[in-house]
Amino acid sequence: MELLYGIELFGIVVFAMAGAIEASRCRFDLFGVLVLAFVSALGGGTLRDLLLDVSPLAWIGDLTLAYVALVAGVATFVLIKFVRVPFRALLYADAIGLAAFTVSGTQAAIELAMPGLIAVMMGMASGIVGGIVRDILANEIPLIFRRDVYATAALVGAVWVYCSQLFNFHVELSILIGFGLICVIRFAAIRWHLSLPAFMNTTSYRKENHQGDL
Amino acid sequence: MELLYGIELFGIVVFAMAGAIEASRCRFDLFGVLVLAFVSALGGGTLRDLLLDVSPLAWIGDLTLAYVALVAGVATFVLIKFVRVPFRALLYADAIGLAAFTVSGTQAAIELAMPGLIAVMMGMASGIVGGIVRDILANEIPLIFRRDVYATAALVGAVWVYCSQLFNFHVELSILIGFGLICVIRFAAIRWHLSLPAFMNTTSYRKENHQGDL
Amino acid sequence: MELLYGIELFGIVVFAMAGAIEASRCRFDLFGVLVLAFVSALGGGTLRDLLLDVSPLAWIGDLTLAYVALVAGVATFVLIKFVRVPFRALLYADAIGLAAFTVSGTQAAIELAMPGLIAVMMGMASGIVGGIVRDILANEIPLIFRRDVYATAALVGAVWVYCSQLFNFHVELSILIGFGLICVIRFAAIRWHLSLPAFMNTTSYRKENHQGDL
Repeated sequence: MELLYGIELFGIVVFAMAGAIEASRCRFDLFGVLVLAFVSALGGGTLRDLLLDVSPLAWIGDLTLAYVALVAGVATFVLIKFVRVPFRALLYADAIGLAAFTVSGTQAAIELAMPGLIAVMMGMASGIVGGIVRDILANEIPLIFRRDVYATAALVGAVWVYCSQLFNFHVELSILIGFGLICVIRFAAIRWHLSLPAFMNTTSYRKENHQGDL
Repeated sequence: MELLYGIELFGIVVFAMAGAIEASRCRFDLFGVLVLAFVSALGGGTLRDLLLDVSPLAWIGDLTLAYVALVAGVATFVLIKFVRVPFRALLYADAIGLAAFTVSGTQAAIELAMPGLIAVMMGMASGIVGGIVRDILANEIPLIFRRDVYATAALVGAVWVYCSQLFNFHVELSILIGFGLICVIRFAAIRWHLSLPAFMNTTSYRKENHQGDL
Repeated sequence: MELLYGIELFGIVVFAMAGAIEASRCRFDLFGVLVLAFVSALGGGTLRDLLLDVSPLAWIGDLTLAYVALVAGVATFVLIKFVRVPFRALLYADAIGLAAFTVSGTQAAIELAMPGLIAVMMGMASGIVGGIVRDILANEIPLIFRRDVYATAALVGAVWVYCSQLFNFHVELSILIGFGLICVIRFAAIRWHLSLPAFMNTTSYRKENHQGDL
């Protein structure tokens, strides 16, 4: 489906940019930037394909995806030397990529006739994992674990896409609305620092403490 | 085999709880908790299935496994808000899950007619990897690398399961004894801080130092 | 091809040693050392096989590879208790392993008739990923992301191997020259601290800062 392919490409571009921006904050060199851009942009879909045993992987079967990720990474690497990019830009790019990959991942699982739980999880994995790997490679606690409504946004979008099509809703509209839903929720979360209930009994991330108390 | 399935489910419950407990120490929100619970509980088996090219993955073929992990994670998330769970509980839950997954992973490889080295390694990978990924996601040095008899316990159990069946020992008894062996070794190790010989020439983990001396 | 198999075995030995040396710097116990040695030595090839959907994995189909990695890890573990190994040794071992795996990974993809981009990426992934996983397990920023000409060396070697064979260059010579090329570039980079242009607008890796400025 052309709409799906377009959304996937769009997601690859913004996630590659987010990866390159994060790399820029860690003084990675050009190849570090490329690796981070590539892994952010294609990691989620690769994991999904591995888990669902789809072969060949999307970006091996269609080199365009790989080239787009690399070009977007290099372009951001160059751009960022001339323009000061605020950290907030990383968050918004990440939000749009999350929306794109969640929706396309859910749709891919639906087309493989997966049950609802798996379709939703594959959508969420596609959307979330690229960013998680990006943050781990940069040796940070992944954003998703420390911050506001993130996975919830992906969940809402994935459930929408699955359920709306379960009731024979128009497929392309279902995808577009799902994409919009996730963007809106994430943008609101970034703008107003919304968060789910977390554990209140600790006031900060105290790594040293709980390593020491054995 | 029903015994094996029961042990696997049991392992999923305790590993999901261990993941949720660890997440609670890092102030993750509900979804961070769910992801950590799920990855802890199903990560080892997923890696094993990927390495052995088993398809579909266990939890995709049998949704019960996925639901059990998620429910155990949510239940622990709720429980932990009302009860103070000592860090030691995480260690014991981890030990039981380690035992369950090591035994079931070894058995799964045996039933695929793998050679001994692979069966033992798959058992150990099934048992150990969930905890490693859990710790990496929480940005910690995985327990296994810093502490007492851990992988050794898994090794002993996996070797027992493989060798006893090599000599036509009763399969279910072999599994039960292997499970018990690992639990006993780990409990003793936790209780008395047993450890294998480590490198004695450093007195603490000095990350900064060895990054600086290039 | 015997040459390729020899280079692969050689790479496994030096990467296993590099993994064991790094583990020694973090006070891992014997099993931590073995895991790090194994993952360093076989991680890159495993990822390559998973991505290309090759089954069974190299070290499952040919147990020699697994045994060599384990023996090299144990030997290094013992050796290192008696001899003081400078950190520089880790860098040189890593360079040789990088060369071996990049070349063998590229060749493997060529023999699967992969397009050039994929062959080069698989070569680079084979060479680089073992070291990345090793560093992540030891909770460090992977060397590749912070340091001098590293991935570039792998890129040059992989492109050489692919392009020379595209023009019907002698296969074994192509492999040997590629191996030599990567070693020379890395050795020079280690010796004279060569680096690619990085982001100049930050003077050090400031993790705390960019986590705080949300």
